[in-house]
Amino acid sequence: MLPDQAIRILVANDPRLAPYTSIREKDLTSGHGGRFIVEGKVTVETLLRRGRFAVESLFLCETRLEPLADILTRVPSDVPVYVAPQDVMDAVAGFPMHRGVLACGVKGKTATDAALVLSQIARQSPLPSTLLMLSDLSNHDNVGACFRNAAAFGADAVLLDGQCCDPLYRKAIRVSSGSTLWLPFAHGGSGAEMMQAARDAGYTVWAMTPRADGAPLASLPVPDKLAILLGAEGPGLPDDLIASAVPVRIPMSAGFDSINVATAGAVALAHVFASRA
Amino acid sequence: MLPDQAIRILVANDPRLAPYTSIREKDLTSGHGGRFIVEGKVTVETLLRRGRFAVESLFLCETRLEPLADILTRVPSDVPVYVAPQDVMDAVAGFPMHRGVLACGVKGKTATDAALVLSQIARQSPLPSTLLMLSDLSNHDNVGACFRNAAAFGADAVLLDGQCCDPLYRKAIRVSSGSTLWLPFAHGGSGAEMMQAARDAGYTVWAMTPRADGAPLASLPVPDKLAILLGAEGPGLPDDLIASAVPVRIPMSAGFDSINVATAGAVALAHVFASRA
Repeated sequence: MLPDQAIRILVANDPRLAPYTSIREKDLTSGHGGRFIVEGKVTVETLLRRGRFAVESLFLCETRLEPLADILTRVPSDVPVYVAPQDVMDAVAGFPMHRGVLACGVKGKTATDAALVLSQIARQSPLPSTLLMLSDLSNHDNVGACFRNAAAFGADAVLLDGQCCDPLYRKAIRVSSGSTLWLPFAHGGSGAEMMQAARDAGYTVWAMTPRADGAPLASLPVPDKLAILLGAEGPGLPDDLIASAVPVRIPMSAGFDSINVATAGAVALAHVFASRA
Repeated sequence: MLPDQAIRILVANDPRLAPYTSIREKDLTSGHGGRFIVEGKVTVETLLRRGRFAVESLFLCETRLEPLADILTRVPSDVPVYVAPQDVMDAVAGFPMHRGVLACGVKGKTATDAALVLSQIARQSPLPSTLLMLSDLSNHDNVGACFRNAAAFGADAVLLDGQCCDPLYRKAIRVSSGSTLWLPFAHGGSGAEMMQAARDAGYTVWAMTPRADGAPLASLPVPDKLAILLGAEGPGLPDDLIASAVPVRIPMSAGFDSINVATAGAVALAHVFASRA
């Protein structure tokens, strides 16, 4: 049985599906009216349940209506649910859409002001408080994984400088296990401005770096307000950002000092979480 | 200038390039005469430098000859270096091969016997000793990331049960930062057999699990011979494997107890490395 707001669509060029066309190619972050696409049952359920972002529409494969019945009860009655055969859905998306469930969210006015997000956190979160700060991370998988780890280890927010890619990009949302849809974040400005906002709010900044002059992670007392700063995979953090923070090193094998940036964040976050437990 | 053993190839169906055709689709692990494909400058350089696996041939885009000159000096003189224009290389590989450098390695007789690998380690590695053990990991990215983390935190070997995917698959090699090309591993048998081999060699096994009855990671003394066991993402380790090991838990936020399996391995390995430092 179709939900009340279901609308059957039989041709791929139906204009109501425009937000879903060629989603791999489309630059959803800038040229698409502030919309973003969410895929997969668990993530769409998170989008609906958390309610942080408005939902413009859902787009389902007709074979998925029954397994998704529990999700559909969460869809507000004024949100259209477009339903199409698998071949139409594939043609719209531009690739085989095996998951069969998409939603279009509205970014609204996402936060670019780190100070504003930090003042909201200060009102809502008891101490201790942890931030994850990302500078110049251009890989959506890494940004998504950083959010997933921040959520797993109880960080209060993620700050991203303007060089980072969009955490509301489809792949970043998926890799984050949906946590970019609810974990507070601010995205914009320079790395130096982001660090200044954290310091102004009373946070000590640990700059994660493989450089030998970094203090070993476990050697430092964990401050009540701590921001963990990660830089681009490959070059790492620039010297000026490291110089204005506490350089911290994850001890590693001498011959192979390389782990993924999100993994480095997880190691630091796990240590901090365990130290405070 | 071309190296002595360079062979110019101008058509995509040249039979000498058969190992490189349609490399995305081909199941290199079983049906391909025990060969494997390595891509990218750094990884091919690792393959040549480490010398653990025989190299059957290289296949380069002609525009990459000059930037790869330092690598080419490492190629044994009896190993052919096929050189082709970019469009021929793309047609052979079946997708745009931007990296422009491939090599075909020979697996030879890769180890399936965990006990044999452990006896070699016992002769070569001083204590303390760490193993990473993987059960039922079917995702090449995760297997590759596990190797990368094992290498970064000085593990002596990786054991994989027969349900795990091949660490010499192209994507696993790349994600591992080439460490599957040199870090000792054994791949085969059941999870229980793998654990028994580790115990017979004197290793204590920590079974990583989010279950509440696991001991918090930092609460345990680190044994001199430690094996860290990771299970499939999603279901995790089966009960019988957990029951025959020490269940260990990474403390996490109550509402979101989910991190990637390779990330969990990194957190455990980093803790063990730091504890011993």
